[in-house]
Amino acid sequence: MSSPKSLHQLRAGVIGTGFIGPVHIEALHRLGVQVAGLCDVAGRVEGAAARLGIARAYGDYRELLRSPEIDVIHITAPNRYHCEMSLAALAAGKHCICEKPLAMDTRQTAQILKRARASATVFAVNYNVRFYPAVLQLRRLAARGELGDIIHVNGSYLQDWLFKETDYNWRLLPEEGGKLRAVADIGTHWMDTVSFILGARITSVFADLGTWHKTRRRPLGEVQTFSGAAEAARYAPYPVKTEDFASVLLQFSTGARGNLAVSQVAAGRKNCLRLELYGSKKSAWWCSEDPELLHFGDRDTANEAAVRGTPAFGPDAAPYIDYPAGHVEGFPDTFKMLFRSVYGAIAGAAGERLFATAEDGHHEVAVCEAILNSHRTKTWAKVPSARPGKTL
Amino acid sequence: MSSPKSLHQLRAGVIGTGFIGPVHIEALHRLGVQVAGLCDVAGRVEGAAARLGIARAYGDYRELLRSPEIDVIHITAPNRYHCEMSLAALAAGKHCICEKPLAMDTRQTAQILKRARASATVFAVNYNVRFYPAVLQLRRLAARGELGDIIHVNGSYLQDWLFKETDYNWRLLPEEGGKLRAVADIGTHWMDTVSFILGARITSVFADLGTWHKTRRRPLGEVQTFSGAAEAARYAPYPVKTEDFASVLLQFSTGARGNLAVSQVAAGRKNCLRLELYGSKKSAWWCSEDPELLHFGDRDTANEAAVRGTPAFGPDAAPYIDYPAGHVEGFPDTFKMLFRSVYGAIAGAAGERLFATAEDGHHEVAVCEAILNSHRTKTWAKVPSARPGKTL
Amino acid sequence: MSSPKSLHQLRAGVIGTGFIGPVHIEALHRLGVQVAGLCDVAGRVEGAAARLGIARAYGDYRELLRSPEIDVIHITAPNRYHCEMSLAALAAGKHCICEKPLAMDTRQTAQILKRARASATVFAVNYNVRFYPAVLQLRRLAARGELGDIIHVNGSYLQDWLFKETDYNWRLLPEEGGKLRAVADIGTHWMDTVSFILGARITSVFADLGTWHKTRRRPLGEVQTFSGAAEAARYAPYPVKTEDFASVLLQFSTGARGNLAVSQVAAGRKNCLRLELYGSKKSAWWCSEDPELLHFGDRDTANEAAVRGTPAFGPDAAPYIDYPAGHVEGFPDTFKMLFRSVYGAIAGAAGERLFATAEDGHHEVAVCEAILNSHRTKTWAKVPSARPGKTL
Amino acid sequence: MSSPKSLHQLRAGVIGTGFIGPVHIEALHRLGVQVAGLCDVAGRVEGAAARLGIARAYGDYRELLRSPEIDVIHITAPNRYHCEMSLAALAAGKHCICEKPLAMDTRQTAQILKRARASATVFAVNYNVRFYPAVLQLRRLAARGELGDIIHVNGSYLQDWLFKETDYNWRLLPEEGGKLRAVADIGTHWMDTVSFILGARITSVFADLGTWHKTRRRPLGEVQTFSGAAEAARYAPYPVKTEDFASVLLQFSTGARGNLAVSQVAAGRKNCLRLELYGSKKSAWWCSEDPELLHFGDRDTANEAAVRGTPAFGPDAAPYIDYPAGHVEGFPDTFKMLFRSVYGAIAGAAGERLFATAEDGHHEVAVCEAILNSHRTKTWAKVPSARPGKTL
Repeated sequence: MSSPKSLHQLRAGVIGTGFIGPVHIEALHRLGVQVAGLCDVAGRVEGAAARLGIARAYGDYRELLRSPEIDVIHITAPNRYHCEMSLAALAAGKHCICEKPLAMDTRQTAQILKRARASATVFAVNYNVRFYPAVLQLRRLAARGELGDIIHVNGSYLQDWLFKETDYNWRLLPEEGGKLRAVADIGTHWMDTVSFILGARITSVFADLGTWHKTRRRPLGEVQTFSGAAEAARYAPYPVKTEDFASVLLQFSTGARGNLAVSQVAAGRKNCLRLELYGSKKSAWWCSEDPELLHFGDRDTANEAAVRGTPAFGPDAAPYIDYPAGHVEGFPDTFKMLFRSVYGAIAGAAGERLFATAEDGHHEVAVCEAILNSHRTKTWAKVPSARPGKTL
Repeated sequence: MSSPKSLHQLRAGVIGTGFIGPVHIEALHRLGVQVAGLCDVAGRVEGAAARLGIARAYGDYRELLRSPEIDVIHITAPNRYHCEMSLAALAAGKHCICEKPLAMDTRQTAQILKRARASATVFAVNYNVRFYPAVLQLRRLAARGELGDIIHVNGSYLQDWLFKETDYNWRLLPEEGGKLRAVADIGTHWMDTVSFILGARITSVFADLGTWHKTRRRPLGEVQTFSGAAEAARYAPYPVKTEDFASVLLQFSTGARGNLAVSQVAAGRKNCLRLELYGSKKSAWWCSEDPELLHFGDRDTANEAAVRGTPAFGPDAAPYIDYPAGHVEGFPDTFKMLFRSVYGAIAGAAGERLFATAEDGHHEVAVCEAILNSHRTKTWAKVPSARPGKTL
Repeated sequence: MSSPKSLHQLRAGVIGTGFIGPVHIEALHRLGVQVAGLCDVAGRVEGAAARLGIARAYGDYRELLRSPEIDVIHITAPNRYHCEMSLAALAAGKHCICEKPLAMDTRQTAQILKRARASATVFAVNYNVRFYPAVLQLRRLAARGELGDIIHVNGSYLQDWLFKETDYNWRLLPEEGGKLRAVADIGTHWMDTVSFILGARITSVFADLGTWHKTRRRPLGEVQTFSGAAEAARYAPYPVKTEDFASVLLQFSTGARGNLAVSQVAAGRKNCLRLELYGSKKSAWWCSEDPELLHFGDRDTANEAAVRGTPAFGPDAAPYIDYPAGHVEGFPDTFKMLFRSVYGAIAGAAGERLFATAEDGHHEVAVCEAILNSHRTKTWAKVPSARPGKTL
Repeated sequence: MSSPKSLHQLRAGVIGTGFIGPVHIEALHRLGVQVAGLCDVAGRVEGAAARLGIARAYGDYRELLRSPEIDVIHITAPNRYHCEMSLAALAAGKHCICEKPLAMDTRQTAQILKRARASATVFAVNYNVRFYPAVLQLRRLAARGELGDIIHVNGSYLQDWLFKETDYNWRLLPEEGGKLRAVADIGTHWMDTVSFILGARITSVFADLGTWHKTRRRPLGEVQTFSGAAEAARYAPYPVKTEDFASVLLQFSTGARGNLAVSQVAAGRKNCLRLELYGSKKSAWWCSEDPELLHFGDRDTANEAAVRGTPAFGPDAAPYIDYPAGHVEGFPDTFKMLFRSVYGAIAGAAGERLFATAEDGHHEVAVCEAILNSHRTKTWAKVPSARPGKTL
């Protein structure tokens, strides 16, 4: 539960007060980082700042960027703002943690990547799944060859929060979230995680995308979410241009093959990311809804379930584990650990930078574009490399 | 546990004494069917008949077919014999249950299909997975629309018995088992099962096949299987032409999309067939290694686990359930139930014929050929229909 | 799937055509044993014999015992007949397999034990749970010390088939089933299984028994079971003298402590027997509703799940395994394996006799009497030993 | 993720910097509560305060109590200090959250209870398990009668962190932790949780306690924990007077019966608290190592698994849920929610006080004393009531 002393001296500014902004703030507070500023549209931001105990509220993010009291910018606004805000934060000389996907297309992400490479500050993309201890441990096991060569990787990321035609969120609109939706929002988590574990980029993809609700109905007026009883009185229909579900076949730079199923209309699946790595020595399986267990499959010995924090789990993730075995760490903890890694890097700590960089963020958007291209052409599509020959 | 009286009057003859022949015999004995003849190569068949308590041993299957004491022929010889034996059994006027896949290619299966259609006898293909009560129940739930429209189906069939380069079986040789291996041997079980549940044929496929062990080593001399300690002393290398693993994307005639992963080199997976049906009302999930539970996924109500044999499971599979809830029925029981269905049809029982027919068997081989074609051309391949417009 | 040739020459006679009699018959047929006679009350037995394909029906069990065509008697009538029938079978010089519990009280079981000891024939009690391969394997692991000393054993046997006050069965009546019900019917399965695994008798017990439905209502007239819809029209109330649930604390002769919970009014539990053995080296866990997996708990290494039939599961149960790993064997298979063991002993096969003997059956009834005694006196009760100093 | 504004104005002081003190601090930071002081022995506390980012370090807890800047005292020192510190905090007019068990014996806890009742401040005992949303929801379901009458409750709390004779912690010493160890440390969590859910006190107990390691060896010199490799060089043997494991049978004031197994020498169990409530309408099951799922068992309908945060889970726990369904909340989150409840009460929020009070804390110690008494006398022991007739 220790934090390097210097973390307490760094001050964060958070842009966005939707679902994920407060998640960032809570994680920063756990680490003892001061959250010195909060930004959203005027009229909304003041109440949020008061509620979250943040001293200063900003109605304009450029003002936040100008503040000398802010060291690190957290961008949690909708996707369409990511590029502009990232570039501005870099121009302002701030460290930056941007939510995924990094931006709307590779034209944008290439710009960010170029500036981030030229900058002395730390730039991170918020792929938090990397920071489940089981995922960190899998990366090290794979790197040490304990699974052998990875033959194929299977898995899925399934949710049901957009199951109904009346479910509504800005991500449904291409102009807010981008041309891909399920794949960009959750599929890239899976793909980034597997690339991270394998230490290998995705080089080609084949995709089949589907839109179940070709028309959805958007609730009008005030909507009471998180309330089973209440329903909006009136709805306006609108055509849906983004995919509800997808199958994506993958080739990795190591030769490993992948198969990913993604859906946001999978009744009963809440936030279920599953990975199965089949190696030439052994297999490993993990699910984000039961994150404490790392399963291993063997031919000659028994299958295993290693509990986070035990000797059998392995020591590699120890810097990113705070609670003893059996005392479940979950989703909020991954944000704490991601920020521990980023703020550690900002504070000058030595060691591997495990968080996703601008290059990783750019690559994931490039993969998404290849997926859309493959679906349209019904053929395998290559993923262009940001810097030929450079691996993860 | 009751059997129609007439079952006891039918007499079976079984061709093949490998792994699956004795499975047929045990299931027939459970039903009270007399197994009057056993056939394999002379020198091997006599000991097997004595061990299995079967009165008459045949060294030539044509002799078995000529016997007036045999009503039903079970073909459990390797794939390459299926066509010749099926045609001969039909010519002899016998009822016939042939192991899957029905034959080596659609040229062969079309012949069998033509003769079977012209015959008054019952011809069944041994897709036993249909007869897990959970699968039978799923078919009825789907037919009644209780899952809504099926949006997408995900799943896998994974094993590890060919994980090592020294693992050997005749199925590895194309001339014995056919041009496809993992897909034909286990993948078709999955595809037949989903088609059976949906009441819908597969119309197009996209496939990515992989061969991990491009060369394997075949043990020479006496091999002691099922013995961790013993290993063959010498091996002969041979090139492998059939796939170890595959990803197959599917389109069904109803518009449902599918995603199937198959592997025989998946360490730790013994015989793991998993189905996930995502419908517009609810989801259903099932795994053959935990066959008693039928899981349902819901958006608004709790996810459910219905135990075989309970009111919640539903009454539709009752004729194919013998043991009360909680008293696990497993793999051997599916053979008993498949044969109950076939022999019931032979005995003239009314009711739906749930077993796979020659048409189903032909179709599965056509799907395999489309899969191989898709893999080679790297495009979606259509599955030709045996009889245009006819659905399952 | 092999059976020693001589099994095919042994002929069984089965007394009882309720739930469990046909289970015996099916298992005998799987082994190739001839079932030459079936016995129940005249008027009922004829139809059952025809349905089950058994040549000869008997309305009087004494007549069955006199038949020279019968080698082995299976007693599956209600508990109150067990003593009389067992003694008669022994007197007739027949081998005998009696359902559990062996008889109504230790006065009866002591008689049976005395005669069985004096007899040259094989006498077995049908504790089938011993013959799950996982249980057989646990016994060998314990015997070899692989779990270390067993410190404590926890578990339960829970069902819901008597959950409602209108659920009816002869076991509810003390004059039919004995003074204990839940403990005698299912609790003894758990206790016999643990004693079998540990190779250790239960020496003292402390019990707390409870009757939830102090009055039940018995359906009058024809009852349609296994039919969610139908209900009896009229009921007659009757007081319940036997326990619906119990907690039993145990001491074993090795010093191990035990804790067993039993219930037949546990909604949602169908037939759920769970064992957890905590040893000084490692732990082992098993559940009868997921019988293929043997779980091991470790402090320093990962927890394990060994699949039946794999090298990791261990070879000790191999003679009682017929199907490969992943091809689920279940409840019906335990009867086949128990009978393989008993008939093998009858046929003179060498090797350990794994089935429960008359001594085991007597001991379990003695444990039940101690449990009732403890409950009434609210103190620990010792279990008298059939033969002082003799262990299992 | 919202916190009432006034929480940000309350200031905490934490006594203790072992395992659980920092857990309190992190949870307070998540809520936006200022942690203004930290107390431990001089020489240790300064580094901890710096590391945890707390402004003021105290070497004497009485000094902390005198500080006008502190509103709420958190007592996380070993058990033997709880009484003295609680009384002092109450005397100083501070609100207080004391770790469980409340004190060493009922003589002490009665004193605390008396003063707490007389005080205007809030006094809470840190039974955090109550604040898993599933537990909060179960309490409401039970209160509304949705499970019917509770017939019996089964469960266990099992760990392996004291499995080895060389495992060492102050809890092993009666003079530090009390006469009971496994029961007092983890067993009371289970008992408090069940009493909380049922709204019913434990009235009688029967216990069987066991000490597996009658002698343990205490490591001398510097011990490197959390390091599989390193081991202490030398050990000193000492006799163990406290129990390693226990079985406890319970009677609740409602008539429900209970059966609890506790062990700290259960290899492979890390921190596994399991509850099974069997009601006259339905059952409910929950495990702390898989805390997001609430399982229901039914006789007539399917068994259910309700995911935290879904409509099916129920809305009752909503004030204590911050993250959407599928985004796992775990052990750290229970501290946040417990403190939200306590600080809300301090801030004058309306609504039920869900946290454990001094009365609850006293009662749990009384239950422990009855358990020890029962074990020694080998009879059922009554639990004296703090205030006759008063229920939870």
